[in-house]
Amino acid sequence: MPEQAAGQPASTLPDKALLDKDKDVTARVQKTRRAARALARLSGHDRNHILITAADLIKSRSAEILGANRMDCDAAAAGNVAPVLAKRLKTDEAGVKEMAVRVRDVAALDDPLGHVQATTELDDGLVLQKVPCPLGVIAVIFESRPDVVPQVGSLAIKTGNGLVLKGGVEARLTNRVLAAIWRDALAAHDPAIAESVCLLEERAEIMQVLQMDREIDLVVPRGSSEFVNFVFKNSRIPVMGHGSGVCHIYVDKAADLKAAIAVILDSKTQYPAACNSVEKVLVHDEVARRFLPELVAALQAAGVEVRGCERTKQICADLNVIPATEEDWHTEYCDLKLTIKAVRNLNEAIEHINHYGSRHTECILTQDNITAERFLDEVDAASVFQNASTRFADGFRYGLGAEIGISNSKLHARGPVGMEGLLTYKYRLRGSGQVVTEYAQGKRSFKHKKL
Amino acid sequence: MPEQAAGQPASTLPDKALLDKDKDVTARVQKTRRAARALARLSGHDRNHILITAADLIKSRSAEILGANRMDCDAAAAGNVAPVLAKRLKTDEAGVKEMAVRVRDVAALDDPLGHVQATTELDDGLVLQKVPCPLGVIAVIFESRPDVVPQVGSLAIKTGNGLVLKGGVEARLTNRVLAAIWRDALAAHDPAIAESVCLLEERAEIMQVLQMDREIDLVVPRGSSEFVNFVFKNSRIPVMGHGSGVCHIYVDKAADLKAAIAVILDSKTQYPAACNSVEKVLVHDEVARRFLPELVAALQAAGVEVRGCERTKQICADLNVIPATEEDWHTEYCDLKLTIKAVRNLNEAIEHINHYGSRHTECILTQDNITAERFLDEVDAASVFQNASTRFADGFRYGLGAEIGISNSKLHARGPVGMEGLLTYKYRLRGSGQVVTEYAQGKRSFKHKKL
Repeated sequence: MPEQAAGQPASTLPDKALLDKDKDVTARVQKTRRAARALARLSGHDRNHILITAADLIKSRSAEILGANRMDCDAAAAGNVAPVLAKRLKTDEAGVKEMAVRVRDVAALDDPLGHVQATTELDDGLVLQKVPCPLGVIAVIFESRPDVVPQVGSLAIKTGNGLVLKGGVEARLTNRVLAAIWRDALAAHDPAIAESVCLLEERAEIMQVLQMDREIDLVVPRGSSEFVNFVFKNSRIPVMGHGSGVCHIYVDKAADLKAAIAVILDSKTQYPAACNSVEKVLVHDEVARRFLPELVAALQAAGVEVRGCERTKQICADLNVIPATEEDWHTEYCDLKLTIKAVRNLNEAIEHINHYGSRHTECILTQDNITAERFLDEVDAASVFQNASTRFADGFRYGLGAEIGISNSKLHARGPVGMEGLLTYKYRLRGSGQVVTEYAQGKRSFKHKKL
Repeated sequence: MPEQAAGQPASTLPDKALLDKDKDVTARVQKTRRAARALARLSGHDRNHILITAADLIKSRSAEILGANRMDCDAAAAGNVAPVLAKRLKTDEAGVKEMAVRVRDVAALDDPLGHVQATTELDDGLVLQKVPCPLGVIAVIFESRPDVVPQVGSLAIKTGNGLVLKGGVEARLTNRVLAAIWRDALAAHDPAIAESVCLLEERAEIMQVLQMDREIDLVVPRGSSEFVNFVFKNSRIPVMGHGSGVCHIYVDKAADLKAAIAVILDSKTQYPAACNSVEKVLVHDEVARRFLPELVAALQAAGVEVRGCERTKQICADLNVIPATEEDWHTEYCDLKLTIKAVRNLNEAIEHINHYGSRHTECILTQDNITAERFLDEVDAASVFQNASTRFADGFRYGLGAEIGISNSKLHARGPVGMEGLLTYKYRLRGSGQVVTEYAQGKRSFKHKKL
């Protein structure tokens, strides 16, 4: 047992057997589906009550969470876990407190279920309603970060969905405590719904999960773009995720050039591994000579490796700008690297972004609102910004309460995805024995009155 | 040239070369994407104006449409086109008039673009808006029915999307006239947007279309479930469609049994090939003995082949009920066939439907609204009905104006899909140089004020 955890009695750590009595993944996911149906029947008030219980448990069992996390971190340090994963794995007292606060934030959001979106009277005594409903069961496959469990757990319960979690091996013990807390919070309300959260731990179980397209309604892979692409290729279940974030900032000729440096530095360096960090900067030719030497120097001073087009290299001849290749325009570095291109005008910037971008987050820096409007209209991306860091593209920063992930798909939920990405709707038609034949023969006709 | 078309001067029929100058499918679809970007910039008023021009052209060029359709029908009769396809191919003066009416109906709907769905002030001078926007380019692959072109054409223009159409070879000439009308209506407004509708005619071009996941945002296959599954398997583009419609009617013990016969007959026989026709009937055991002999006799009198579970066969011993196999519960017949099962209670009915149904359209017949409510809540399907024929599950009948298709997916658009299925949204963030670092360091905090 690692040193730091010596004071922690082993018995308070949940036994694997407690969470994983049933070895059969299919049976466990089916149980989750059944329990989720009972969860979906609860009122919004009851679902919020479960969230508040969970927040209380996170607080009262803080020592247990931290003990498990310490053991995971020690094992990671002793083993061969990549440093970037190991770093994201660690949490502390403030981190645990923050988890509880975020769960309470989700409880405070309006109930996304239980209202009617639209009502149409098709004819006398034949009324159609469109109502929101949960998707059913969501599977989230994620790496190290322990705050994923409370975040997606609270969104799933708030929206009445079952949840299949598969965390990284490196966070095994932390996830086990957190999942146990969710199940305890559910069971405290009603033992029949305890199984609506299910934690899987074995990598081999992922392939089984991806084949369960009758039982699972949505898969959310959170991890490297290779992993996301693997899931896209190996599942018939709809996938919410994104393969890459090739984000651009276009510096217009009417940009505030001083502010531009600060926004670009923040977008690149505040957290370079994030999908919303900037990878390419396009600069209007008219300001390139004035702006580029200062930008490149600032980037290099911040430790960023700069690549550039022919014109950028010419302008910054006395700075070390690496020539950009075609591959650079397609690449998400997730690192302190950035490629710069001079463009003739707004049109060339928009064309370039629509051709090479990943439709994630794209930004224009300009004081000219007419130019900005065209950029925001014509660039095809989930998030389009004027004069702000690309790093703002995030569910928490957008005020969505929590984030299930970021979607590069255009269908359903796009960009940072909160509760609404976990909902669908159904049409309910209530009649009194109406048949279509009468309408087809012209004996009756539709009213289609919006109520 | 077929006899009936002899009076029709060949020169009024559009030459293939007119529509298909560019042999290269990729280049044509890319042109469609560019033209669609210009279309999306138009005001709602302008897009409606194009629709009204198209409706006028459909009316004024009615003879041309009917001439082409007559030639297609003759060729189908002479060739080896399946009778069911040949029948759906034919249109007449009333059919053409109806096309124009439906296009005008879509023009009369509210503009789905140009409004703001939500505004959040993240902080001073940092405002996030969520706005609807077109998907981009939609590809619709369809069989014979000529009214598909005006229906999906009007939805595409209304929502600012480009449209790639691939019609059945059997409707080649009819589609060519109709597509030419759309392009003329677009060109009359602005030649730059004429190419936002593109008609493909060769079967071999389908595979090319399915590979163009950068240029096409949504594929809508309309045809057999084999074809829909083929598209699902062969494309990385999101697909909107449905593999099958295994729809159930559950006859509760509190059903109005007389009305039940009429609803089941309509659901089965009004158009048996439709995906929303009923395939299975579940009957509560308490009413089975009274209800089943009458139901089976009525179905058989209407030419329906009846299959049944053991109990159904027992009760209807003197009627010719074929024993149902496990496969029957999974099968969409699209034909005058129906399988019946006696169930012990509502729970068994719900379990059966959630296990075997295709999440398309499911119906309960009951006068007991509490039972109905549980069914409507717990059955997992896009459309859930009480006391009405399953055949009502249709975009026109729902009052959506027109229908792009029916989706069995839970994500994005579900059930009969009108305009909203062709839209996505984007987040627009307007700032004044804000960087994330300040918020991460706690120097500033978010307001998240809904405006």
